Amino acid sequence: MRQLDLVYEGKAKSVYRSDEPDRLIMRFRDDITAFDGEKKDVLSGKGRFNAEVSAFFFRYLEEHGIPTHYLGLIDQSAMVVRNLEMIPLEVIVRNIAAGSIVRRYPFKEGTLLDPPVIMIDYKSDVLHDPMLNDDLILALNLVTRDELDLIKAIALKVNELLSDYLDARGITLVDFKMEFGRRDGEICLGDEISMDSMRLWDRETGRSLDKDVYRLGKGDVIAAYADVARQILSEPAGGAP
Amino acid sequence: MRQLDLVYEGKAKSVYRSDEPDRLIMRFRDDITAFDGEKKDVLSGKGRFNAEVSAFFFRYLEEHGIPTHYLGLIDQSAMVVRNLEMIPLEVIVRNIAAGSIVRRYPFKEGTLLDPPVIMIDYKSDVLHDPMLNDDLILALNLVTRDELDLIKAIALKVNELLSDYLDARGITLVDFKMEFGRRDGEICLGDEISMDSMRLWDRETGRSLDKDVYRLGKGDVIAAYADVARQILSEPAGGAP
Repeated sequence: MRQLDLVYEGKAKSVYRSDEPDRLIMRFRDDITAFDGEKKDVLSGKGRFNAEVSAFFFRYLEEHGIPTHYLGLIDQSAMVVRNLEMIPLEVIVRNIAAGSIVRRYPFKEGTLLDPPVIMIDYKSDVLHDPMLNDDLILALNLVTRDELDLIKAIALKVNELLSDYLDARGITLVDFKMEFGRRDGEICLGDEISMDSMRLWDRETGRSLDKDVYRLGKGDVIAAYADVARQILSEPAGGAP
Repeated sequence: MRQLDLVYEGKAKSVYRSDEPDRLIMRFRDDITAFDGEKKDVLSGKGRFNAEVSAFFFRYLEEHGIPTHYLGLIDQSAMVVRNLEMIPLEVIVRNIAAGSIVRRYPFKEGTLLDPPVIMIDYKSDVLHDPMLNDDLILALNLVTRDELDLIKAIALKVNELLSDYLDARGITLVDFKMEFGRRDGEICLGDEISMDSMRLWDRETGRSLDKDVYRLGKGDVIAAYADVARQILSEPAGGAP
């Protein structure tokens, strides 16, 4: 498969057309950004760890009945994906209060959120990804009521699957972000599932194992990404899952 | 009834204990503020117009089956109200896109929102009234699921009643804000319904008839408040409602 022209350039990924119909190439770059693009760096090797972990989780989710855009890896830092009609929503599931929810609302960091809290932002660099509610999402005609309900149900199921998988490896899934698209009218999980899109804590020490290492200047980002990627791709200490 | 000690001071109203149990005195001051308190003035007579219009609408809503805190006026700028256990939510119903929704989201000013859009903010000066969604409201234990559903249903009913009433007088209810409380465990409408809490447009000219006259420096605020109060308290041109 050949990589053709660039169709979308995000803050840390580039998406290209391929020479096969309805197949795109999603390349994970070594760029890393935080705080709405105000902090920026290039960290050699980062794209590879995120591609590897994303590919792994998409396969895992597909095996557990979640429709995703994933088709395969074509090199260490690029996936082949189905060409979805993307929905401009960032769907965030939170299991534990951390990050912006603690700054904006009276939650204490580390508070368990049970049931998990779903938050949905409008994906727009110009508008700085403003938070939505259901009424706004429908008024903006971004999805139908049925699609919104399905997106939330899939988001909670993905949360369960990822939480259980990570928990078996001593990692707490604090929160994570998803993006969805439509394929033949069906809702399908797109984008990435990586250390850039998940907030992960070591269950024993509470240490950050994700982009917070970069955001908050907590140490060697590449060493942290390499370490957590190895843990994620390993068998759990006690067997399944 | 005697006015005793101050129990709450807001940006434009003061609430006092009275010498009767469970009865408070809500006094509408002549203070006016905008932009999260950054713009401030005192406009002589303003409190009176807001008290008069609020009292009128609370009576009107009570007559139409909406439970409110209103008991009566004790002078031109003060109402007697039931002492509710207030819920720290600002419930906004929007019929037409204007104001913050246009700045934050891709709505064109003047777009009809049908069905109306409900937005709910967390009432907190320190946190600058951040927007909530249903999951957050429940995670913060601000209300139960049943209470939230009831608050939304009451909000839409109040919107219908006020929209019809104002429409008969040539005024469009663009959006408005409500606050709710609990009385003996029942949800009850509190706070005010005034030119400070509603966005009103003259249906023919589109001219602002509310606090936007002040926010946006569109002319003589007191003249506008006096004018709209007179229209609201008058019989409609064509009879009922």
